[in-house]
Amino acid sequence: MLEEMGKAAKAASYQLSVLSSEQKNQVLLTIAERLEAQSAEILAANELDLADARQNGMSEALLDRLALNPARLKGIADDVRQVCRLADPVGQLIDGGQLDSGLRIERRRVPLGVVGVIYEARPNVTVDVASLCLKTGNATILRGGKETYRTNSATVRVIQAALQQHGLPAGAVQAIESPDRELVNQLLRLDRYVDMLIPRGGAGLHKLCREQSTIPVITGGIGVCHIYVDESIEFDAALNVIVNAKKQRPSACNSLETLLVHHAIAERFLPVLSQRMAEEGVKLHADPRALSLLQNGPAEVSEVTEAQYRDEWLSLDLNLKLVDGLDEGIAHIREYGTQHSDAILTRSIRNANRFVNEVDSSAVYVNASTRFTDGGQFGLGAEVAVSTQKLHARGPMGLEALTTYKWIAYGDDTIRG
Amino acid sequence: MLEEMGKAAKAASYQLSVLSSEQKNQVLLTIAERLEAQSAEILAANELDLADARQNGMSEALLDRLALNPARLKGIADDVRQVCRLADPVGQLIDGGQLDSGLRIERRRVPLGVVGVIYEARPNVTVDVASLCLKTGNATILRGGKETYRTNSATVRVIQAALQQHGLPAGAVQAIESPDRELVNQLLRLDRYVDMLIPRGGAGLHKLCREQSTIPVITGGIGVCHIYVDESIEFDAALNVIVNAKKQRPSACNSLETLLVHHAIAERFLPVLSQRMAEEGVKLHADPRALSLLQNGPAEVSEVTEAQYRDEWLSLDLNLKLVDGLDEGIAHIREYGTQHSDAILTRSIRNANRFVNEVDSSAVYVNASTRFTDGGQFGLGAEVAVSTQKLHARGPMGLEALTTYKWIAYGDDTIRG
Repeated sequence: MLEEMGKAAKAASYQLSVLSSEQKNQVLLTIAERLEAQSAEILAANELDLADARQNGMSEALLDRLALNPARLKGIADDVRQVCRLADPVGQLIDGGQLDSGLRIERRRVPLGVVGVIYEARPNVTVDVASLCLKTGNATILRGGKETYRTNSATVRVIQAALQQHGLPAGAVQAIESPDRELVNQLLRLDRYVDMLIPRGGAGLHKLCREQSTIPVITGGIGVCHIYVDESIEFDAALNVIVNAKKQRPSACNSLETLLVHHAIAERFLPVLSQRMAEEGVKLHADPRALSLLQNGPAEVSEVTEAQYRDEWLSLDLNLKLVDGLDEGIAHIREYGTQHSDAILTRSIRNANRFVNEVDSSAVYVNASTRFTDGGQFGLGAEVAVSTQKLHARGPMGLEALTTYKWIAYGDDTIRG
Repeated sequence: MLEEMGKAAKAASYQLSVLSSEQKNQVLLTIAERLEAQSAEILAANELDLADARQNGMSEALLDRLALNPARLKGIADDVRQVCRLADPVGQLIDGGQLDSGLRIERRRVPLGVVGVIYEARPNVTVDVASLCLKTGNATILRGGKETYRTNSATVRVIQAALQQHGLPAGAVQAIESPDRELVNQLLRLDRYVDMLIPRGGAGLHKLCREQSTIPVITGGIGVCHIYVDESIEFDAALNVIVNAKKQRPSACNSLETLLVHHAIAERFLPVLSQRMAEEGVKLHADPRALSLLQNGPAEVSEVTEAQYRDEWLSLDLNLKLVDGLDEGIAHIREYGTQHSDAILTRSIRNANRFVNEVDSSAVYVNASTRFTDGGQFGLGAEVAVSTQKLHARGPMGLEALTTYKWIAYGDDTIRG
């Protein structure tokens, strides 16, 4: 079955690759219209998924993430209209020139071809990914969380109807319409047809893809993010940044997990930190040196473990470690970080520059919250994923990350000497 | 052992990443000097490798590829001096600007970190790869063909002496100093330390890496290249391009393997093609329609098999197929090509544009030989590999392909609202 889907996706990708931006936008507008006009089908499928999920004991938070209603569907359709307004990177001339051999050469931006996306039980991602891929002329094979397979199937049927209305094949956007996990393994080995695989999910999924996939994978989304607090800071301003990075959305991958504090300011800074964390409801996990300064509260505190330094809390918990200075701070980030987002708070230009140069993360901040690592915040207009690997795309991935380039050379019956 | 090498390489990569171009060039010049000054050590190790290879029945062609002598070593040292003259992409500002949030943001080009390279028994590649990686601030772990492990070890020791002369760690350039194949498998799973893996070798090595590596891999180097001969051509000029693409270096991955000829010109073109191929010593493998027109020679001809369409000849053999027109030509390339280099010979602007837009290969040519797909020919100054995948880099990879970028954001205690 997957083989057939791959073949259909590849064939569709050739048709999509030669569409103009205007043609692609027309398809997107039809998709938005149909998502609203055919909402009954999608909402009915969603009801069935929700009923099953409730019966299987899914938490209220996850049920809410899974649930659609007319207002949410309208929001999803509006997001598609928003994608129309983004600039289309396909066809861009990257560089080029005249070679000594007489060849005229150019590097032109083109679609990747077929993109596979594996994601959690979020129905909005189905439309989001499909529209970003269509905008860039790519076909997609979607595998959403098994708890949403009916919703995703219904959604994709609506998208396919829009495609066919414009004379395009249904193979351009396909969903794996079965909760069977074995199909994920088959997808991972479909390298003959799929050009890039994006897993959006937890560490387990990323590990599975890295180990099993024969398709190039973009991994990321895991953020053990740090703030290093240098000795030259203003306490109140620093606390505001720390609270923002930890609390503005604790479940996000760019939220703060570990605070590294220069030991020279510990005696003065830790009491005000403890006060603020108590007010904000943040629980501290401190190394022994910091612990002795925090014993008397008011923030709740316990001793941090080595394993906690390596993991995302994604909750109102915060690791705290005293370091002897910038060197130890950078060494800690190198050892325990996930190369996602790390920040320094300092008034020293020299230390800011060293941090920026020496910390090897996708996003490095000087005097700012780590929460900004996001396609929208970075001005990309969209976010396909956040990559923490180094090939192809790093950090927030916008539309450009869904493209590659080809070399085109024009000669006059030119031969190599 | 590999774990230790990985750790040392990662530590060295941090030191390399902050060197200036001038500092890196000084190291490269010292390497070039020492390759000449310490040539005796390298040549002695090479003698031992050659003696073993001879005993194991290595062919004269491969023995020649393995052999070093003072002149070749001088050539290799000169290549290193040439790398000094290339522009250093590290530190380049890719783009940036001021965001609404108040953040000032930039994307800066930085080294990848640690690059693993697996290659055949070519001693020159050891120095070539090491110098390109050093130029871009990357550490390397090298695994050359097992027949050259003594030569490679001796060469890397000379490089390490040069590194240490400049206060840099030997971990910056390391060779796996054992012919044990199991070590390749270990290298493929060193994702904790190695950021990119480049296999340079045959289809088997690429398949092994694609299936087993947990490190992002750049695959490529396999070229089933096509020329489509449209109905509007000048025969003599077309024949010159065909001969160049086939014969200029048949063992290269960008050489021609399959000729697709518009059926409308077959009766006139095939006799002159056969004449020229006979003169050039090229043997034809033709589909039944073409075969009937070629039976009377003068070129040697046999019937082509399906499998031959999918394989590289790398010899003076050439597949030949008549097609009904551009559509069938493009369909054949999509089905049997390896997305390396494909060309159209035509006088039709419309057909040239269609070919360029619809053939999904790394390099697409209009009226030129496929032999130009090469870092040097494309003006990159160097060639790390030729990628036929679509992520990160496509076609000839120059120094830029050995870099990634980081996002740097400067705030003033800026928080996300």
